[in-house]
Amino acid sequence: MSGKQVWVIGIGPGGGEQMTVQARQILKQCDVIVGYTVYVALLRETFPDKEYRTTSMCREIDRCRLAFEEAQSGKRVAIVCSGDAGVYGMSGLMLELAGEYPDCTVEIVPGVTAALAGAAVLGAPLMHDFAVISLSDRMTPWEEIGRRLRLAAAADFVICLYNPASKGRPDYLQRACDIILEEAEPERICGVVRQIGRDGESAKMLTLRELREEPADMFTTVFVGNSRTRLINGRMVMPRGYAIETAGR
Amino acid sequence: MSGKQVWVIGIGPGGGEQMTVQARQILKQCDVIVGYTVYVALLRETFPDKEYRTTSMCREIDRCRLAFEEAQSGKRVAIVCSGDAGVYGMSGLMLELAGEYPDCTVEIVPGVTAALAGAAVLGAPLMHDFAVISLSDRMTPWEEIGRRLRLAAAADFVICLYNPASKGRPDYLQRACDIILEEAEPERICGVVRQIGRDGESAKMLTLRELREEPADMFTTVFVGNSRTRLINGRMVMPRGYAIETAGR
Repeated sequence: MSGKQVWVIGIGPGGGEQMTVQARQILKQCDVIVGYTVYVALLRETFPDKEYRTTSMCREIDRCRLAFEEAQSGKRVAIVCSGDAGVYGMSGLMLELAGEYPDCTVEIVPGVTAALAGAAVLGAPLMHDFAVISLSDRMTPWEEIGRRLRLAAAADFVICLYNPASKGRPDYLQRACDIILEEAEPERICGVVRQIGRDGESAKMLTLRELREEPADMFTTVFVGNSRTRLINGRMVMPRGYAIETAGR
Repeated sequence: MSGKQVWVIGIGPGGGEQMTVQARQILKQCDVIVGYTVYVALLRETFPDKEYRTTSMCREIDRCRLAFEEAQSGKRVAIVCSGDAGVYGMSGLMLELAGEYPDCTVEIVPGVTAALAGAAVLGAPLMHDFAVISLSDRMTPWEEIGRRLRLAAAADFVICLYNPASKGRPDYLQRACDIILEEAEPERICGVVRQIGRDGESAKMLTLRELREEPADMFTTVFVGNSRTRLINGRMVMPRGYAIETAGR
């Protein structure tokens, strides 16, 4: 570690077990860890002797600047995100702002995003082509979100939904289901995983019709199967093409 | 670890650093590791004292049965996949076959898939909604692949392509580009990452028109940007909506 460098690290879901070996090694060597309050609390247990800098939920730009400023002062800095650094995480914004801090290099360290970790809890819903869509309209107009949902369902992608609802938009999952129902049958197999990798993790399999009535929040990840998704022994599975039929191969 | 259990483990790209802490802990405790020859070779260095069972590339069903049979004999067994276990990996097939081995439980351990690891090498191309599509027509008719490409491009998803070409289908990436070019401009920003996490890892940014002429193989992961993707200081970035404009927030 030499020069002024900031690591943008995806720590996986939860507090540490699903972090990569590389992420853990870099965090061990850092002086300062910057992050959203909730994620940082999870890290304090594993790395108690670091300097922690936190900001609240929506202050992403402040958080990025804080990381660059700490790095400029000569400290080894990591800015952490839940899941992966590059999927609805901080890596994009860090690279957008990096031009203002030309003496700092930004390195991205990937992690297990909720789509992958949630899929493992449910079974194997993402075995083949899939689309990941956020229902948050904080940065994207709802019309664009709705259009993506419609086309993804028409393309028969398995769909993984992030940020399915929040206090300010309690009915967004319902609205998304209504759009998908224009293309998919009401009995379509879906799955919901809550608090992935944390205390109280839970999973549920249900139909698309039932999903429409399901409560959800920012800690819920939703999976909408495609036309070939099956329930096999209570797990949500996207079967593997003609694999079984050609077993003699 | 009690009862007869098989772990299906995504070891991330490369040989070990990008594996999760959880994956490493489970592998450490296993007696037998089953996998495709190439991935197993990468693991032997980290875990030299295990019993390894390998099969060649296309013998996935044999590999799964081997894992179940070893578990039935009372051994602690892991079957490993490159990247994530559930994205074009082995977890689906394992769950499909599990009914034939009712005394064995299957547990899935997620990992960093090539889309996430490749994105981190290029910059932050997957910051917002994206679709993952395999160009292999071994299990999926080309018509279905083409239809998904067309609709994903129409929905303005960032698209990540797995298995972009192989010896038997050298022109598939070209064919995919031709379909995407019906919806996207030739100057669309794209990226290619080769041998992610391995010796010889390399990355390249190019336009969609140039991507059409780019050689590719099974160790190449391809990223096609959407209408908002930008090159920022030589990195491929999906900018974060109105983030910069509302910096005073």
